[in-house]
Amino acid sequence: MVCAIALACVTLVHADATKQAKPLTMSDVLAASKASDWRALDADNTLYLELAGGRVVIELSAAYAPKHAENIKALVREKYFDGLAILRVQDNYVVQWGDPESDDKTKQRVIKNAQRTLAPEFTRKISADLPFTRLPDVDGYAPQVGFSNGFPVGRDPKTGDTWLAHCYGMVGVGRDNAVDSGSGAELYVVIGNAPRHLDRNIAVVGRVVQGIELLSSLPRGTGALGFYEKPEQRIAIKSVRLAADVPAAERSQLEVIRTDTPTFAALVESRRNRHDEWYKVPAGNVELCNVPIVVRPIAASAK
Amino acid sequence: MVCAIALACVTLVHADATKQAKPLTMSDVLAASKASDWRALDADNTLYLELAGGRVVIELSAAYAPKHAENIKALVREKYFDGLAILRVQDNYVVQWGDPESDDKTKQRVIKNAQRTLAPEFTRKISADLPFTRLPDVDGYAPQVGFSNGFPVGRDPKTGDTWLAHCYGMVGVGRDNAVDSGSGAELYVVIGNAPRHLDRNIAVVGRVVQGIELLSSLPRGTGALGFYEKPEQRIAIKSVRLAADVPAAERSQLEVIRTDTPTFAALVESRRNRHDEWYKVPAGNVELCNVPIVVRPIAASAK
Repeated sequence: MVCAIALACVTLVHADATKQAKPLTMSDVLAASKASDWRALDADNTLYLELAGGRVVIELSAAYAPKHAENIKALVREKYFDGLAILRVQDNYVVQWGDPESDDKTKQRVIKNAQRTLAPEFTRKISADLPFTRLPDVDGYAPQVGFSNGFPVGRDPKTGDTWLAHCYGMVGVGRDNAVDSGSGAELYVVIGNAPRHLDRNIAVVGRVVQGIELLSSLPRGTGALGFYEKPEQRIAIKSVRLAADVPAAERSQLEVIRTDTPTFAALVESRRNRHDEWYKVPAGNVELCNVPIVVRPIAASAK
Repeated sequence: MVCAIALACVTLVHADATKQAKPLTMSDVLAASKASDWRALDADNTLYLELAGGRVVIELSAAYAPKHAENIKALVREKYFDGLAILRVQDNYVVQWGDPESDDKTKQRVIKNAQRTLAPEFTRKISADLPFTRLPDVDGYAPQVGFSNGFPVGRDPKTGDTWLAHCYGMVGVGRDNAVDSGSGAELYVVIGNAPRHLDRNIAVVGRVVQGIELLSSLPRGTGALGFYEKPEQRIAIKSVRLAADVPAAERSQLEVIRTDTPTFAALVESRRNRHDEWYKVPAGNVELCNVPIVVRPIAASAK
């Protein structure tokens, strides 16, 4: 398996399960991980979406969507989202939130300091700033797939493009037909089978790292595209805050597994060929979105 | 694209989008479909899982899991499931139901006429009885994938095996470590990114064709593997019935798109390369589980 692009490019070994002396389960791999196999969330790129049911923690990828991440942070800092709502829950697809009155210019929430439209960031150019750990398994939607600093990504060496992939839990920026019509004022989260056909068509900005069940278990909307038909069905957003703006004691203390380590390679292999007694036939393959990018509380002793 | 096995094998055309005179959207394809592009559900292989929230309709595949389908119908006819409960809802994975007291021999629900264990039906041998419409797009989990009479399937010409694939909405038979430990008394439904690593490891018996949102939107269990920790969190099953045993007036009148027709090939192509104005980059690919096997109410005039 050759990694075609030399820039910060590593390929995860596609191990032959039959040759492993002692195959590991994912639990084994995580139990044996070292502190250096994990990184804390960056408070400057972590959002807290606060709902009545609890907190959804979102990590933004400033590397892959710098302008969109910056604008979402500007929206958050002007408290744009506070009091808005989850408007759409489409089964096996997305949860989406924004301004219920966005179509009514007399009632819509005013954007004060943030941008109202942004140039598209659907793809980025492959560069050393965007590390890539390649997954050797085949993928139908991209010539290459893998991980970049904790996010699932696709790459095309021919075009030189790379992009965040629409896996379960990924967060994207809603837009209209015009490519520059998104601002981050309307965001969605994938809650179904990976809609990878959206890749390269829309700006993906991050990933839910905790609390996705607060979104995925919401009642499905019965209107077209899963929009709620009655205002009272919508789920109110109490607030969205940047972790850096929240007192340290109120922050969610989480760390994410690094995706460029031998430990992560072992984790991937443990999902490619499972060695729990229950499994009778190892898959010999793992699909990009079936690789868990594990998040865990930071141990009290490590804080 | 060559279809390696001659038995009842058709390959969907992998159309070059740039050469199509008038590319169709899925709405176009469905609007232009003929009555013969659809088939009614078979009442002898359709289950109604009745919950307080409504009805979940499941189509069994007697072709791929004949003994399991038969045993589940036997369980249903002895009203085994009535009063049992949904026990497990694991985010991005499965909803599972069965007997909360199954581990307590003094309290467990007694199976009267149905079998308590069954020989595994994890795969079937490829045969003319199992029609196959091949999807030409690449798949990491199976040498060939496609559709068999409305179900997503994998095939391996080398081993001669074919199996139902774990896509969103598919229904499987829970088992313990022993391959023959499943009976159908415990069933699960996929509610997340397709866990295709389960393929060939467990008996898949059917697909939810209506009402999956009644399962996928349930609160996630907080115990290990998403099991509910408190009895009162479980969701009661009012009853499970075979459609054939329900008065005709109370049946769900549904039809499923046939998966071996030019209309279905056009539907697949409409998902492989989307031509709605919103899309800027066609995917040029569609993953097996991203192909919707469309279900619709039977028009009153057509009943």
